[in-house]
Amino acid sequence: MDGEQLKTLLQQVREGKISVEQACEKIRVMPYQDLGFAKIDHHRAIRQGFPEVVYCEGKTVEQIITIIEQLNQRTDSNILATRMIPQVAEKVLAKIPQAEYHELARMMVIQKGKQKRVGNVLVMSAGTSDLPVAEEAALTAEAMGSRVERLYDVGVAGIHRLLLNHKQLFAARVIVVVAGMEGALASVVGGLVDKPVIAVPTSVGYGASFKGLAALLTMLNSCASGVAVVNIDNGFGAGYTAALINRIGEKEE
Amino acid sequence: MDGEQLKTLLQQVREGKISVEQACEKIRVMPYQDLGFAKIDHHRAIRQGFPEVVYCEGKTVEQIITIIEQLNQRTDSNILATRMIPQVAEKVLAKIPQAEYHELARMMVIQKGKQKRVGNVLVMSAGTSDLPVAEEAALTAEAMGSRVERLYDVGVAGIHRLLLNHKQLFAARVIVVVAGMEGALASVVGGLVDKPVIAVPTSVGYGASFKGLAALLTMLNSCASGVAVVNIDNGFGAGYTAALINRIGEKEE
Amino acid sequence: MDGEQLKTLLQQVREGKISVEQACEKIRVMPYQDLGFAKIDHHRAIRQGFPEVVYCEGKTVEQIITIIEQLNQRTDSNILATRMIPQVAEKVLAKIPQAEYHELARMMVIQKGKQKRVGNVLVMSAGTSDLPVAEEAALTAEAMGSRVERLYDVGVAGIHRLLLNHKQLFAARVIVVVAGMEGALASVVGGLVDKPVIAVPTSVGYGASFKGLAALLTMLNSCASGVAVVNIDNGFGAGYTAALINRIGEKEE
Amino acid sequence: MDGEQLKTLLQQVREGKISVEQACEKIRVMPYQDLGFAKIDHHRAIRQGFPEVVYCEGKTVEQIITIIEQLNQRTDSNILATRMIPQVAEKVLAKIPQAEYHELARMMVIQKGKQKRVGNVLVMSAGTSDLPVAEEAALTAEAMGSRVERLYDVGVAGIHRLLLNHKQLFAARVIVVVAGMEGALASVVGGLVDKPVIAVPTSVGYGASFKGLAALLTMLNSCASGVAVVNIDNGFGAGYTAALINRIGEKEE
Amino acid sequence: MDGEQLKTLLQQVREGKISVEQACEKIRVMPYQDLGFAKIDHHRAIRQGFPEVVYCEGKTVEQIITIIEQLNQRTDSNILATRMIPQVAEKVLAKIPQAEYHELARMMVIQKGKQKRVGNVLVMSAGTSDLPVAEEAALTAEAMGSRVERLYDVGVAGIHRLLLNHKQLFAARVIVVVAGMEGALASVVGGLVDKPVIAVPTSVGYGASFKGLAALLTMLNSCASGVAVVNIDNGFGAGYTAALINRIGEKEE
Amino acid sequence: MDGEQLKTLLQQVREGKISVEQACEKIRVMPYQDLGFAKIDHHRAIRQGFPEVVYCEGKTVEQIITIIEQLNQRTDSNILATRMIPQVAEKVLAKIPQAEYHELARMMVIQKGKQKRVGNVLVMSAGTSDLPVAEEAALTAEAMGSRVERLYDVGVAGIHRLLLNHKQLFAARVIVVVAGMEGALASVVGGLVDKPVIAVPTSVGYGASFKGLAALLTMLNSCASGVAVVNIDNGFGAGYTAALINRIGEKEE
Amino acid sequence: MDGEQLKTLLQQVREGKISVEQACEKIRVMPYQDLGFAKIDHHRAIRQGFPEVVYCEGKTVEQIITIIEQLNQRTDSNILATRMIPQVAEKVLAKIPQAEYHELARMMVIQKGKQKRVGNVLVMSAGTSDLPVAEEAALTAEAMGSRVERLYDVGVAGIHRLLLNHKQLFAARVIVVVAGMEGALASVVGGLVDKPVIAVPTSVGYGASFKGLAALLTMLNSCASGVAVVNIDNGFGAGYTAALINRIGEKEE
Amino acid sequence: MDGEQLKTLLQQVREGKISVEQACEKIRVMPYQDLGFAKIDHHRAIRQGFPEVVYCEGKTVEQIITIIEQLNQRTDSNILATRMIPQVAEKVLAKIPQAEYHELARMMVIQKGKQKRVGNVLVMSAGTSDLPVAEEAALTAEAMGSRVERLYDVGVAGIHRLLLNHKQLFAARVIVVVAGMEGALASVVGGLVDKPVIAVPTSVGYGASFKGLAALLTMLNSCASGVAVVNIDNGFGAGYTAALINRIGEKEE
Repeated sequence: MDGEQLKTLLQQVREGKISVEQACEKIRVMPYQDLGFAKIDHHRAIRQGFPEVVYCEGKTVEQIITIIEQLNQRTDSNILATRMIPQVAEKVLAKIPQAEYHELARMMVIQKGKQKRVGNVLVMSAGTSDLPVAEEAALTAEAMGSRVERLYDVGVAGIHRLLLNHKQLFAARVIVVVAGMEGALASVVGGLVDKPVIAVPTSVGYGASFKGLAALLTMLNSCASGVAVVNIDNGFGAGYTAALINRIGEKEE
Repeated sequence: MDGEQLKTLLQQVREGKISVEQACEKIRVMPYQDLGFAKIDHHRAIRQGFPEVVYCEGKTVEQIITIIEQLNQRTDSNILATRMIPQVAEKVLAKIPQAEYHELARMMVIQKGKQKRVGNVLVMSAGTSDLPVAEEAALTAEAMGSRVERLYDVGVAGIHRLLLNHKQLFAARVIVVVAGMEGALASVVGGLVDKPVIAVPTSVGYGASFKGLAALLTMLNSCASGVAVVNIDNGFGAGYTAALINRIGEKEE
Repeated sequence: MDGEQLKTLLQQVREGKISVEQACEKIRVMPYQDLGFAKIDHHRAIRQGFPEVVYCEGKTVEQIITIIEQLNQRTDSNILATRMIPQVAEKVLAKIPQAEYHELARMMVIQKGKQKRVGNVLVMSAGTSDLPVAEEAALTAEAMGSRVERLYDVGVAGIHRLLLNHKQLFAARVIVVVAGMEGALASVVGGLVDKPVIAVPTSVGYGASFKGLAALLTMLNSCASGVAVVNIDNGFGAGYTAALINRIGEKEE
Repeated sequence: MDGEQLKTLLQQVREGKISVEQACEKIRVMPYQDLGFAKIDHHRAIRQGFPEVVYCEGKTVEQIITIIEQLNQRTDSNILATRMIPQVAEKVLAKIPQAEYHELARMMVIQKGKQKRVGNVLVMSAGTSDLPVAEEAALTAEAMGSRVERLYDVGVAGIHRLLLNHKQLFAARVIVVVAGMEGALASVVGGLVDKPVIAVPTSVGYGASFKGLAALLTMLNSCASGVAVVNIDNGFGAGYTAALINRIGEKEE
Repeated sequence: MDGEQLKTLLQQVREGKISVEQACEKIRVMPYQDLGFAKIDHHRAIRQGFPEVVYCEGKTVEQIITIIEQLNQRTDSNILATRMIPQVAEKVLAKIPQAEYHELARMMVIQKGKQKRVGNVLVMSAGTSDLPVAEEAALTAEAMGSRVERLYDVGVAGIHRLLLNHKQLFAARVIVVVAGMEGALASVVGGLVDKPVIAVPTSVGYGASFKGLAALLTMLNSCASGVAVVNIDNGFGAGYTAALINRIGEKEE
Repeated sequence: MDGEQLKTLLQQVREGKISVEQACEKIRVMPYQDLGFAKIDHHRAIRQGFPEVVYCEGKTVEQIITIIEQLNQRTDSNILATRMIPQVAEKVLAKIPQAEYHELARMMVIQKGKQKRVGNVLVMSAGTSDLPVAEEAALTAEAMGSRVERLYDVGVAGIHRLLLNHKQLFAARVIVVVAGMEGALASVVGGLVDKPVIAVPTSVGYGASFKGLAALLTMLNSCASGVAVVNIDNGFGAGYTAALINRIGEKEE
Repeated sequence: MDGEQLKTLLQQVREGKISVEQACEKIRVMPYQDLGFAKIDHHRAIRQGFPEVVYCEGKTVEQIITIIEQLNQRTDSNILATRMIPQVAEKVLAKIPQAEYHELARMMVIQKGKQKRVGNVLVMSAGTSDLPVAEEAALTAEAMGSRVERLYDVGVAGIHRLLLNHKQLFAARVIVVVAGMEGALASVVGGLVDKPVIAVPTSVGYGASFKGLAALLTMLNSCASGVAVVNIDNGFGAGYTAALINRIGEKEE
Repeated sequence: MDGEQLKTLLQQVREGKISVEQACEKIRVMPYQDLGFAKIDHHRAIRQGFPEVVYCEGKTVEQIITIIEQLNQRTDSNILATRMIPQVAEKVLAKIPQAEYHELARMMVIQKGKQKRVGNVLVMSAGTSDLPVAEEAALTAEAMGSRVERLYDVGVAGIHRLLLNHKQLFAARVIVVVAGMEGALASVVGGLVDKPVIAVPTSVGYGASFKGLAALLTMLNSCASGVAVVNIDNGFGAGYTAALINRIGEKEE
């Protein structure tokens, strides 16, 4: 396609429909667009149902509101704002009432139009303290158009809870496993299924959990195949990756 | 289905075709098979084209040969032996001549029958020293039935090499990025594509690379979304996960 | 016993007292109960005098109160709530006046009926700053039915204090050693006795104690045999393990 | 008893049967014997069936042989030599033919007379590479008079193997869990049983296992109660502690 | 020159213009001035346009104000105060109105007279959260007489932003790259240019960024040549070093 | 001497002046006193001018006041309270007006009678932020009877400041070097003198100082001989050790 | 210039001198060349006197020889091969006799024609064990056209050695400081001069040097301004960066 | 004194006995000698009985022999060569027969004339594997003129061995404690005595000893006052420091 655009442009040069200088200018800004990724930057959300994402941590309240308002006017795609504290959410909601704030996940979603959710992403958590991260993963995948099932509080200390729900595990296309403390759930799930497992260590724990390091190492060393890991507490990244994977099952691009 | 089996069994009890004691015994061993995962253990390779895997490190030569010979007789699926040194390979080849040994990847593959490779897994490496790990990933994905493309030696220190090959990036269904030293390639690739990226840090480097820790942390902290990480030097795990993801694009299970 | 239940059920099927469908449903939920651990979940407290445990950190005040109230109504066993701050304790006490709150150990115990404490668990601490963790261990073991002796502030910097109390050491069935800073007490005690020692490193200290890491490593490397270690500040885990061990001396299961 | 000895001595002083100087000398060396631990040093093996232990690593071949020969002549108790390489074993066996060398566990046992093994220690391992450490634990516990059962290669990647053997788990008095890589087995076992679990992380693994650190942290952060941990690869320490615990069930001291 | 001073002094001694004792005293304090570095301490700012620097962290408000006031009276060179919080800035501004406070960079600059800025230092940042550190670098280099260009928010997740600005990169004499999270920008820039790159890891990130450690390791292991690194968040050090380098291009000393 | 006491006691037994039972009791509590360290515990302060020390961190205000008041009544030796915050100091001063509180060092000293300070301990600091730790060291050594000189703010970034004061270095009997950030001062001083140097790393710094770890490692790896190190920020420990060393020069014990 | 090339091309299109398809193809490969870095890749060595660099570690002997032979034929620039062991050097020298092998620095240099060395790079080392890394830095800078002075074995344990050579320090344009153990030399030098200092930590040391980590942290935390750091043992990187800086003083690009 | 030299020189200038230029030159090289430390470098060994020290690790056999031969001819003081392997020792002994090689300590001592050893340094070790480091400490202190007592294999696992030898502890002027594994001995000894204790962690141990890190942290966090620490396995440094301290008790300098 980009080859076509360039060909057309050169044809116009040959035919004198466009000056050499104008063509020169157009080609100079083209390289990056020709690569495709610039186009993705501008248009991919509309085409692919991908949300725009705002990472709120380390931004001032004013910055966050301005960015979201501008995005809201400029784009038809969903908007996702992660790590947003309630005080900020309140102010955004006052300006954009259709926004939905999920306090547990510290996340705001602005849904544009009706979204069809497809496929099957299963988000599991080991304990109740892992819920904020698990919900961040689930909401992210949903905002990206994935149908999401949740299976929470099924840590390995009571493994029968996990086994009793094996049908959900076998039905999923991709599974996100969220666990803190020793993070053993990822290995157990990885051993039960033949689906890709995205493991999210959380900072839940104390002492030698070293703020999630223990769970991170556990997951990286999983004796089960098919387990890949994201950063500690990175529910967003896990949900995003799971949605990318889930989409593969829908249609080839 | 298992429901059906149980129903049939109970029907037989009611009809006196089987004694209470016999039924009792059958039900007691049933739970794990009813869960489905035991069945997978026995039959999944045949059904799904999944290979049997032998991790050779820490096993004696005798143990490795015995295991591979037994697997070779017992199963119709491919057999994969990882981290196998040439001395061992030689002895196995003497007994199983159809085995193929890939010295760079320290891997042996025993292909059973003709395999159709489908989909599109791209395996990239940053430097030439990362090749053993990259090849382990590529061969694993191939043994699991994935069509694999290779794009090697495209580290970020010469980013034009990467950009010149953007078509391969955009064509892949899932990308494995193998990189040592600072491991920055995963982030750059993750920022260019909207496919899942499985990042493999390698122990290539010295000093403050701390045997792959630097690359591992880089990849876990990737500012690009859609990047998930496996253990240092774990080419097998990355290839396995990529093949699981690639398979989703083929057909729903 | 479970064998008995299943036998009875099958007998009822044979005798037509229960339909195949009903039996089917009953058996489907049975597997995990047959394993024994599900039963433990529901019934072990009553049989064994084990408490229900609520870990309060990371839960909201409302969640904690709800969980404790429901447990209090549903179970006849003791209830243990760990890492509970005074503000929460106050609210719980207002609703459940028979609860006892131990501020030093940040722990609440709800004792159901009169409890006989048996055996001999010795809980030792190196310094006064280790007391919260030591008390958590002691109260946990007591709530699980162990008779507990306390020997506090006997750190190795004044080893005569320890030696003067050797009789308590020799009388115990199992010893919990709680120590921060360099955690050397565990090794010294382990060298004096031929009892299992459960060592608890605490985060007491500063600088190169790295929040308990120094004491943890000390205890893991103990040159004395018979020392096993739990997580930093994990008084609960130590008390729980010690009570399990102490119980072995009472009666075989 | 020591009180009695002292009283007798003082009586002899009063009665002039022993000079003040002689009594003085006797009392000066008494304190440490009065504490009981000196006695344990000299006599405990005979009374309690405890073995003498020789840690071979970092000792010369000559030193090891000398120590074992002297112990062999001096004591009637069993002798245990840990981390002994085959070259040394060969030389010891040439001198002490009744010694048994266990190559896998790198351990030598010299059994004195017939030993009755009691109680029930279960030693489990996650993978086959963990066997040397597991066997070190099992042989140690046996040399200390414990009856030991072994349940090997039941890692969490195939959890049905573990569940199918639940009877062994429930029958044990104390369980030793040996696991490398991510070490998740300890948590799963700890969640299934209400027995003390001694967890041994092994250095099996690569990359981010950091020579056993990953498994160590996993086990320390176990979400299951009743799990205590020993040093990486410390099979001896786990077997020793398990035997101490197992003995509690036999008879009160 | 110092040689000249000494010669003059000795001449004065010979000519009796100054007593031996006085000369003795003068020479005793001279050694360090003879080395040249003492002179730098007292006079270099005037000669070289170097600022006096006050590091405010860990100093009381009173201490900071006193030091700045004294410097302001004593020196004609610029004054730089780093890591100054707004509350302190307010009080200093009340006393020294010509001071300029840069809140984002937590930095105060007191410009003495008109400053000519020369050369070409490019300060780049990966994300907007890295701005405080980037601005600290830029303002420091400016206060030291460097002309500074800024290129912010050009992280590798959207590498076309970086490539679109390649002219700025090629025009610079020295480049400061400020990046948190995985810090990959330094490698990419280092691979594009043949200028010295001063890399500044920032503590921006969470989880396995370990407060900047990930970015630090990434930058130290850069596969691109010509990259040197300063401490985490040390914008001042990077700006200072860049200004030293930039000055080399101006004139030889 | 203790030999004498025992002899006397036995003589009394022989002579019937004391009953066997009474002697028995006396001897039972004697062992630890015979060792000498128990005596030190009770009497050493008076004999040796050593202070009693109270570590305030992690103790409640009430506990601190009670302990100091009791010590104040019970002992004639100096009292030292470390890590005391001003709020606590105020309350103690209200009760014990003769106490002196040193806010910078967070230390309280209660001087009993007139103290003669002897020897020569030099306490040096690299920067002004290191002063609290340096003062803790200096005041501790003074309270233990050492004459202390202070040489502050002589960090290696301006080494002439250090060299100009070489006489103080050469005059000291033992030197305490307090330094944060990179802690290089200890090596430089260690290379200049042939006195024992006690190095104290401080947590002053940011980023890769990792709260004092950088300075700690620097000091442990000092290329200069004669440097020994105490914990991060442990001014008390350094002052105490220096005073012990300084005392050796006074008189042999 | 590139603008000119593009303009000419488009003019040719308009004038029909080149077909649209041919122009299309030419423009498609142009972007990366237009950026300038591709040109650098092909031509920069000739223009700038920069060497081609081969990193030998992790490459086979055959690979190294092939790469060097090909480079030697293809380029007129100097060739640098780092981390080359003597066995390999011998084989290369047999084929390319004009190559020079520096065993201490494990480096081979192939000098093409006569090279003029300009400017003033000072390479310092703390101890004699740091020489391999220091020589790697010096030889790299020389191969890049820098005049290099060496000042070795001037560690801070004997600081007079350093001070006696202050003239060399003040004469340099940029200084490379190579030091292992505690690495304090970088700070002392940084405090003496107002030149950029490139610090290279080495793995020289033992115990808590943690293979260079101690020196690395020391240098990153330098209290002296103007110090930037490269990876542990990275003499090449330091020499390369120093040469880039040194070149700035020669002529503006 | 140096003041005197300078005065004389200036007097000579005034009196015309020396030219201004000559005086100029003399004064310029004077500063470092005036500081006194350069003199110490040349003469202190003779005056003070201090040995010259050669650290052999990382030096070639030829370098070591050359250095020792030159030292042997040039100096009358003792010579100490540390970390010397037997192969090197053999060659040195062939040339300098009066040298003594201590294989266990990997140390060579060349004693010049008869040495009087004074004071009382006690070197203790926890286990037999710590002997090489302990002997390095003892031999170093002896070579520096200290009388040394040894008390080995008194680890805390059998604390009565330590207590039985309390007289040696109380008699020492300074104590060196060498211990690996958990290193608890330093704290216990520090608590028993009121002498400075120099603690040496050793790399003896495995697993979570992390090559001496565990023992190092233990010793740095010692709850006993008066304990200072040197690098892991740094027996030389401990012996050197202890000898410096011991010498204080002999005579004031």
